[in-house]
Amino acid sequence: MKERLGIGITMGDPAGIGPELCLRALQEPVVLKQCTPIVFGDAGVLRRVAEAAKLSFSASVVKLADWEKNPPAEEPIVVDCGAIESGSVLPGMISAECGGASFNYIKASIGAAVANRISGVVTAPVHKEALRLADVPYPGHTEIFAALTGADRVCMMLTSEALTVSMVTTHIGYASVPKKISPQRVQDVIELTDEAMKWLKSRTPRLGICGLNPHAGEHGLFGEREEENLITPAIERARAEGIQIEGPLPPDAAFVPHQREKFDAIVCLYHDQGHIPFKMLAFDTGVNITIGLPIIRTSVDHGTAFDIAWKGNADPQSLFKAIDLAVRLAKGKGGGPQCLVNQSRNSIRAAEPWMSR
Amino acid sequence: MKERLGIGITMGDPAGIGPELCLRALQEPVVLKQCTPIVFGDAGVLRRVAEAAKLSFSASVVKLADWEKNPPAEEPIVVDCGAIESGSVLPGMISAECGGASFNYIKASIGAAVANRISGVVTAPVHKEALRLADVPYPGHTEIFAALTGADRVCMMLTSEALTVSMVTTHIGYASVPKKISPQRVQDVIELTDEAMKWLKSRTPRLGICGLNPHAGEHGLFGEREEENLITPAIERARAEGIQIEGPLPPDAAFVPHQREKFDAIVCLYHDQGHIPFKMLAFDTGVNITIGLPIIRTSVDHGTAFDIAWKGNADPQSLFKAIDLAVRLAKGKGGGPQCLVNQSRNSIRAAEPWMSR
Repeated sequence: MKERLGIGITMGDPAGIGPELCLRALQEPVVLKQCTPIVFGDAGVLRRVAEAAKLSFSASVVKLADWEKNPPAEEPIVVDCGAIESGSVLPGMISAECGGASFNYIKASIGAAVANRISGVVTAPVHKEALRLADVPYPGHTEIFAALTGADRVCMMLTSEALTVSMVTTHIGYASVPKKISPQRVQDVIELTDEAMKWLKSRTPRLGICGLNPHAGEHGLFGEREEENLITPAIERARAEGIQIEGPLPPDAAFVPHQREKFDAIVCLYHDQGHIPFKMLAFDTGVNITIGLPIIRTSVDHGTAFDIAWKGNADPQSLFKAIDLAVRLAKGKGGGPQCLVNQSRNSIRAAEPWMSR
Repeated sequence: MKERLGIGITMGDPAGIGPELCLRALQEPVVLKQCTPIVFGDAGVLRRVAEAAKLSFSASVVKLADWEKNPPAEEPIVVDCGAIESGSVLPGMISAECGGASFNYIKASIGAAVANRISGVVTAPVHKEALRLADVPYPGHTEIFAALTGADRVCMMLTSEALTVSMVTTHIGYASVPKKISPQRVQDVIELTDEAMKWLKSRTPRLGICGLNPHAGEHGLFGEREEENLITPAIERARAEGIQIEGPLPPDAAFVPHQREKFDAIVCLYHDQGHIPFKMLAFDTGVNITIGLPIIRTSVDHGTAFDIAWKGNADPQSLFKAIDLAVRLAKGKGGGPQCLVNQSRNSIRAAEPWMSR
């Protein structure tokens, strides 16, 4: 049995800060102590970035096809996906080529995780416009991972020491949110959040859930009674399953210190309801997890930061924390039986063999 | 010329924490040094609350009609509006009677301010459901003050040492927000915010404005291009008037420390976009101002807190800060010529006589 888990790290958009973060992870003692980092990217890009940002690059490089044929060695490695001509990359520029390359790294990493070659995937940031220019039919990582692993219900969770939030909806327009909220979807996200937090906390977690309208509707005074019609039924069903959850909370009261400290996680209905408080409390140190997948996936909580790309100044803390969380999740650390959140409804299944590799 | 300004304080919902906050204001040295507090409420309720909460109550009481006939003395006073039978009030209970009474205190205070008997109004919290039960045709203070003073454009501003936000929309349902956002309304709120901050800061303020969608739409990727169609045109017109404003900002990035510190105020499009970050940073210490009125109106930033009403434990800091801000606004302190934000477009007018009373 291997001592250390192999954790895949996708390089993200080549024109962003992903490459330099990967270079740092490949040589970071804290990371190397926990796992074997396996970067899915392009070695040519990493070499250019290493030179531009004055970072060392001494990890071995192996072509993706070769790596897939031979079991990975227990050393930091770059799996070269050959996805882009490195000379063509312009740092800080949105391009279809970079969007397509970043999608290829993700696909390679998902294939490796599903085939049990790695114990989890940590993703560096992609650029959503570049993905769209490359005709990638998904708006972001969460949707790509859900589609390519065939998970039927997933949600985004952001976690940090100060606050954990999970999302009923994510990357859709403000006006589209109400029609995407159904009692079933809210219940799914409550259950996924409960399962994930049980696993991380080793006990029944205390959850909160926000309302949609100002003051959570104040008993029908504002809004279309979304609280009564869409959220409360889901809360009641979750409680019937033994889940401890309080809400719908007035959104502007949920995140004040003495409220947020009551909860292990707060379920939010739309992107900014959760992201505004989370980023205020955990800017650059948060970790994004996709819960409900059959594989482990964590991510940095920041974007491609094109304005500082290839300069070597990007803070790698969020990536290191995402790697740490992926390792903890993969080890099932902190929680009773090794188990993982599963895409099948209401179930927690025992760890698959790939988890303990 | 009087040394101290007379500042009206409405008692708020009799069943809430408003009465005990008023009792504290009537005897608070910091308040008495700055102004003469004139409480618009019911003396019978204040007596009951003083007994229940073990607070002293030694201020003079005068009936509203008598007070209106005779010029107010320079001492803390309770203007008894005779709006409710004090024995009927049940602390912590929502009732039409209390809603109606709290509306009467507001009307009396607005009448006094418009007639120049007081230099500004500070409001204790009302309960929105109680107002509705009493058939008050406005959802909250901001709307009442706008209607009863005939102001044609107003907006809510929340201010604290850490953050100031102003609101394009406030107490409406989530789903109603997009149709209430027009370039003209956004421009109005930008101009009102700029005028108010100029007055408070004595210089051209630096403003930010949020987008509506996640990531401010990311160039049309999310949403219906509300940023390009509704917000950017207003920004451009405001800049043409010399207003310094940046945006549309990705909402989840606008409030992280190094971003929010760049701005004197951030214009927000909907209630929770501004209230979530504001309450996180200034819970219990924020002040709510209605900008664009012909009179000065500030308010506590919290609710009626029915759960702790009449117990004497409510924190009066937000009320004291609201009084302080009303005095500063009334004195035109901190800013060049005495002036106030006016409801007429693009104008700052010289102080009216009532301002320097």
